[in-house]
Amino acid sequence: MKSRETADKRIVRVDLGNRSYDILIGSGLLQSAGGETLARLDCRKAAIITDTHVAPRYLDTLTESLQTDGIETFSLTLAAGEKTKSFENLHTAVDFILDARIERSDAVIALGGGVIGDLAGFAAAIVRRGVNFIQVPTSLLAQVDSSVGGKTGINTRQGKNLVGAFHQPHLVLADTDTLDTLTPREFAAGYAEVVKYGLIDQPDFFHWLEKNRKAVFSGGAERAEAIARSCAAKAAVVAADEHENGVRALLNLGHTFGHALERATSYDGARLVHGEGVAIGMVLAHEFSARMNLASPDDAKRVAAHLKDAGLPTTLGDIDGDLPPPDILMDAIGQDKKVKGGKLTFILTRGIGEAFIADDVPPSEVLAFLTEKQSQ
Amino acid sequence: MKSRETADKRIVRVDLGNRSYDILIGSGLLQSAGGETLARLDCRKAAIITDTHVAPRYLDTLTESLQTDGIETFSLTLAAGEKTKSFENLHTAVDFILDARIERSDAVIALGGGVIGDLAGFAAAIVRRGVNFIQVPTSLLAQVDSSVGGKTGINTRQGKNLVGAFHQPHLVLADTDTLDTLTPREFAAGYAEVVKYGLIDQPDFFHWLEKNRKAVFSGGAERAEAIARSCAAKAAVVAADEHENGVRALLNLGHTFGHALERATSYDGARLVHGEGVAIGMVLAHEFSARMNLASPDDAKRVAAHLKDAGLPTTLGDIDGDLPPPDILMDAIGQDKKVKGGKLTFILTRGIGEAFIADDVPPSEVLAFLTEKQSQ
Ligand SMILES: NC(=O)c1ccc[n+]([C@@H]2O[C@H](COP(=O)([O-])OP(=O)(O)OC[C@H]3O[C@@H](n4cnc5c(N)ncnc54)[C@H](O)[C@@H]3O)[C@@H](O)[C@H]2O)c1
Ligand SMILES: NC(=O)c1ccc[n+]([C@@H]2O[C@H](COP(=O)([O-])OP(=O)(O)OC[C@H]3O[C@@H](n4cnc5c(N)ncnc54)[C@H](O)[C@@H]3O)[C@@H](O)[C@H]2O)c1
Ligand SMILES: [Zn+2]
Ligand SMILES: [Zn+2]
Repeated sequence: MKSRETADKRIVRVDLGNRSYDILIGSGLLQSAGGETLARLDCRKAAIITDTHVAPRYLDTLTESLQTDGIETFSLTLAAGEKTKSFENLHTAVDFILDARIERSDAVIALGGGVIGDLAGFAAAIVRRGVNFIQVPTSLLAQVDSSVGGKTGINTRQGKNLVGAFHQPHLVLADTDTLDTLTPREFAAGYAEVVKYGLIDQPDFFHWLEKNRKAVFSGGAERAEAIARSCAAKAAVVAADEHENGVRALLNLGHTFGHALERATSYDGARLVHGEGVAIGMVLAHEFSARMNLASPDDAKRVAAHLKDAGLPTTLGDIDGDLPPPDILMDAIGQDKKVKGGKLTFILTRGIGEAFIADDVPPSEVLAFLTEKQSQ
Repeated sequence: MKSRETADKRIVRVDLGNRSYDILIGSGLLQSAGGETLARLDCRKAAIITDTHVAPRYLDTLTESLQTDGIETFSLTLAAGEKTKSFENLHTAVDFILDARIERSDAVIALGGGVIGDLAGFAAAIVRRGVNFIQVPTSLLAQVDSSVGGKTGINTRQGKNLVGAFHQPHLVLADTDTLDTLTPREFAAGYAEVVKYGLIDQPDFFHWLEKNRKAVFSGGAERAEAIARSCAAKAAVVAADEHENGVRALLNLGHTFGHALERATSYDGARLVHGEGVAIGMVLAHEFSARMNLASPDDAKRVAAHLKDAGLPTTLGDIDGDLPPPDILMDAIGQDKKVKGGKLTFILTRGIGEAFIADDVPPSEVLAFLTEKQSQ
């Protein structure tokens, strides 16, 4: 058994000098959390932050593994959902960590999806100006995206992720078993980010996904393969540009539109979850690129078809309920952080796997495009 | 006139690779804030954070200088005092900066003492994961200490400065004219930090201060000299150890006791301001070092005499009102962030200008010492 688990385990190394760290991907990793932690940190205590969906399923297993290895544990369970990424919960998390008297050499552990990872990571970044941080991502989105790269943050009334810190984890434990309890909708949402890596600069990976989508959804070797390739893709970009001054912006493919849609639906997860916003956003980015004569409209269609087959929304009309008018959507885009001196920075594309950073997109063109889309 | 100002202006460079910055010290610097900013940043907007004591005196001058140079300004005036360094005000400051739509290339400016500097700097660190930051320190303590080195933060119910970030300013403008409106008490409090630099590793500077104390208090060349020497001393330590993993801890001379006293007096500025806590703390550190047979008791007496001459408190008995019992003070010390695995880290000394980091101080010795001190 043990050797099978070891054989299954994939390791992706994120290369950041003295802040480099491992992403472990595989089955049964929750059970070895204590050992993996002590192999890397001289840690006496761990403050675990999790949510109400994840705690009943996985908190005991994680806690037991840590305690068996002599690590004292504390836990805080927050409400599940995007609204949890608030200033108020940041305060709650910080109080929890300080009350547990976590020292710089101890660890804060995020057990959950991207919401918990972003919130707990931010709290770990600012308590004592930075304590050790471990990600135990349990959603597909968190395993392939949010747990990698050190971005942490919360939402405010002005927009999403406008407040946060860069704080690299010391270890990421992506236990693929935990994905079995994810709803199909959440799994699909995470899959949108997997597709994103293909669309950015790996056309081969996109073609591989077109062929292997069903196997990735049903689990097994293809699923682990897709997660590892995604982590490696993100890790490479992060290593090249840790603080998002350059190429890292490519990871925002689909996200400027996506964030605006999330904002327009008041971060109401019943209407739209992050990965769904990204799916629609990626289709819009391809369509907008075609409209600007940068790419063929066929590519946009091919992307939309694949995402649709995966059960994802691909048009504004796929979102339940009314959307605000285009000028309000534009306002949401303007509040997004990728704005430089009035001009918009968008990730556009010349075709599948050929995304690029365009930092001089005229807002008027985007407004015209959105107006057209909403009237369809 | 202009040439006299230029002749008066001293520049201390803080050497941190691509995050290096200048500290300008001199008369009339508020009036040239716009020019000095644009010489360093491509900045369209500035969000100024200040307090109720400072705003009526200096906000207009600063605003005018920025606007004359074409920088759009916004301002937020918070209540003066240590209590302002709270989570709630952090939220207020962050909202203010986001509502002003400050981009990463714009600037947040702290106009005030260390409280405003720490709070505004922390807000600047976390908005968009870091926007440009300029310090315009107006208290002596802020000019010689808090505005230099990039530490930012707030207080929580668990203790002082337990939550924060490292965020280097892009420029520090220390206008010595602003010190004229400081109360004598606040001036003396800042002077405690000046003395600290002598006590750490510059016995010559301490002797110079013993001779020139009156001139430093009454203003003129000696005052500017003392500020510049202090900034240079701190800048050197910060350059050697930006993130407080080593020698930077020396700057905490007097601070472990000082913070505990501030906490014990509930950060009530009427009873004790930061520099006063540091003054008492430095005397206690010298006395404790003597008690541990590390230094001569005469040095402790000489330090106490100089601080007393400067109008500073030097004993626990000098604090108005009752202090909590020694075990509660110990608890406050234990919550201080310089704790490693149960043992206390203290800055102790072998004599004037010979401070060192002791990271294995037994809590029992400190408790016995405090018990003795409180019964005197
Ligand atoms: N930091 C980054 O670089 C980064 C990158 C991408 C996204 N994000 C952020 O990630 C968030 C979205 O992440 P998410 O989709 O994981 O959201 P999430 O954390 O809300 O998780 C989605 C839902 O799945 C539940 N869940 C998680 N794991 C489960 C499991 N194993 N079994 C059953 N239910 C489970 C959660 O409770 C939640 O209801 C957004 O806030 C987004 O901004 C951050
Ligand atoms: N970040 C760091 O490295 C660092 C270092 C040392 C201290 N600190 C922090 O600095 C704070 C103490 O700084 P402080 O003593 O400047 O406190 P402060 O900001 O409260 O200023 C002291 C008082 O002087 C007033 N004031 C300031 N400038 C004035 C002026 N020119 N004229 C009239 N009144 C003026 C203020 O309104 C306040 O009432 C503490 O919170 C401490 O933790 C931080
Ligand atoms: Zn995303
Ligand atoms: Zn101090």
